[in-house]
Amino acid sequence: MGSAEDVVVANKKVLLKHFIPAGAPKETDMELVTTGTIRLRVPEGSTALILKNLYLSCDPYMRSRMTKHEGASYVDDFVPGEPIAGFGVGKVVDSSHPGFKIGDYAWGMTGWEEYSLITDPKLLFKIHHTEVPLSYYTGILGMPGLTAYAGFYDICSPKKGERVFISAASGAVGQLVGQFAKQLGCYVVGSAGSDEKVNLLKTKFGFDEAFNYKKEPDLTKTLKRYFPDGIDIYFENVGGSMLEAVLYNMRLKGRIAACGMISQYNLEIPEGVRNLFLIIGKRIRMEGFLVFDHYGSYLEFEEKVVQLIKEEKIKYVEDIVEGLENAPVALVGLFEGRNVGKQLVAVAHE
Amino acid sequence: MGSAEDVVVANKKVLLKHFIPAGAPKETDMELVTTGTIRLRVPEGSTALILKNLYLSCDPYMRSRMTKHEGASYVDDFVPGEPIAGFGVGKVVDSSHPGFKIGDYAWGMTGWEEYSLITDPKLLFKIHHTEVPLSYYTGILGMPGLTAYAGFYDICSPKKGERVFISAASGAVGQLVGQFAKQLGCYVVGSAGSDEKVNLLKTKFGFDEAFNYKKEPDLTKTLKRYFPDGIDIYFENVGGSMLEAVLYNMRLKGRIAACGMISQYNLEIPEGVRNLFLIIGKRIRMEGFLVFDHYGSYLEFEEKVVQLIKEEKIKYVEDIVEGLENAPVALVGLFEGRNVGKQLVAVAHE
Repeated sequence: MGSAEDVVVANKKVLLKHFIPAGAPKETDMELVTTGTIRLRVPEGSTALILKNLYLSCDPYMRSRMTKHEGASYVDDFVPGEPIAGFGVGKVVDSSHPGFKIGDYAWGMTGWEEYSLITDPKLLFKIHHTEVPLSYYTGILGMPGLTAYAGFYDICSPKKGERVFISAASGAVGQLVGQFAKQLGCYVVGSAGSDEKVNLLKTKFGFDEAFNYKKEPDLTKTLKRYFPDGIDIYFENVGGSMLEAVLYNMRLKGRIAACGMISQYNLEIPEGVRNLFLIIGKRIRMEGFLVFDHYGSYLEFEEKVVQLIKEEKIKYVEDIVEGLENAPVALVGLFEGRNVGKQLVAVAHE
Repeated sequence: MGSAEDVVVANKKVLLKHFIPAGAPKETDMELVTTGTIRLRVPEGSTALILKNLYLSCDPYMRSRMTKHEGASYVDDFVPGEPIAGFGVGKVVDSSHPGFKIGDYAWGMTGWEEYSLITDPKLLFKIHHTEVPLSYYTGILGMPGLTAYAGFYDICSPKKGERVFISAASGAVGQLVGQFAKQLGCYVVGSAGSDEKVNLLKTKFGFDEAFNYKKEPDLTKTLKRYFPDGIDIYFENVGGSMLEAVLYNMRLKGRIAACGMISQYNLEIPEGVRNLFLIIGKRIRMEGFLVFDHYGSYLEFEEKVVQLIKEEKIKYVEDIVEGLENAPVALVGLFEGRNVGKQLVAVAHE
């Protein structure tokens, strides 16, 4: 490819058709366009690269980008009419950037299309380990993995023997947080939205306990049952009424790492949390964090987790949808909790 | 007194008549009893002391003690039929405790009565400076003062030039937090519930700005006006809708020290905070704290603040009600925001 003549190829894309104000995203908010093409050469004099997208990641934070924000948001809004942007894994097919050469694999911010011209690859990381499945770099070895690692070790201040609760525990981040916590010698309980996911938590990921929150009429009592002595650490992925139930069950000096609040993203009026006064008497620290602040630890993280994968000391489950044309349904399904494990889209396998 | 024969004297008391479930406390929930007496001698073989109560403190946290708690609370419930317990300043009139001798002044946990037999003075501190008004040890030099000091310096991680917002800012804690923040070179804005209090904040305590929240129909916009670039530090004393408005206005990596949520204490159903998801994108740290964890810093604090008082580098305003019989109305008034400055009751002046 690199030595070839200019090659122009077809380039299917998935666009965001329009901003959506509130509510769950629908497939019809996105559009597959099959008529586009791309020249597989970086522009003359640029420091760009062209990525052949192999795997695209569906992540909860993407909901926020589908809404127009008046003020600043922590990520840019999507641009209607343009391909959806997101994390992905790809192969470099042309490059004039000093950090990437043709044939390299990379993960990071790319587009929902077959090939992406990336003019400013500052959110792109070279993949150092091709002996593990490349798709892992959308999850356990990518953004969600680093989120779990930084969130658990840096924000939760965990100690051996502490009692850890994780919501949305079978998701890309939750399944890893639980395993990191088990490795440290914590008691770990997770919640998820189906019996299949609960089963996965207990049998595959080694959680001590797990429950299906949809079958629990009173989450405060449910948590009391699993944590008779209370919760030291809550890894927060859902927000709303779950957070309220957790606050009733937190122990003195407990910590809450707020990673996401997926239950709230689609609501026009988010649920109110009415018992925040408990953080005073219980001296709770609740801290929000974003993986963007922790990319400096990526190399250390990658080496550590690749090693854990090779030694089979960590398990990982993916939910792979085949074909770019199925990306919209995969993203919509994420917000409905349809996925089991990390949701991603395979655009091409090589 | 110490050398005298046994002396039995009258001992007026204010009792809590009954637990109250929710809602504002009323004067009729308390009762003045004038028929009691006390023997001004500690029991034989005890390590107790008898305190002549001079000043009694009215503090927001006392509301919680008027309700029966099923599980653990961070302070014990009051005992119906017994004198209300609270912080106060007194003179030791008898003692068999090695830490206190007759004639010493002390502050700490005592009872709403003229004399208190204190059998376990572990929450009683000797007063080292009688050259400042003794009543100050219910406020600037007592529990609220240490609360402000520990909360601001330990929990807020303040830096020079940061933008600080304080709610209930004219209260015992708020007025001090604002002055500590000004001393550090911060921009400081406070909210309060009357124009008189607002005036006090600006003219007496040196706040950069202050506003009467009761006159502001949209607190989110109000805060935007005073903090066009956002808030770095919020010292939280009120909770509810104010917290919601603050979250909309917090800057990246802002800190919220949750000291109290007085707006919520009397509500049957507390207000819900609906925008907690903002703590993720903004990486906000919200931390509850209690002064009880910080008594180890008391001596250092006392010396530092006594010095500031003597050099007139810190201002302090008290709202003193005369007479134990007026203690119930003072406490009720605190929850209605009637006090201007630190609310206390003078039982005796010497």
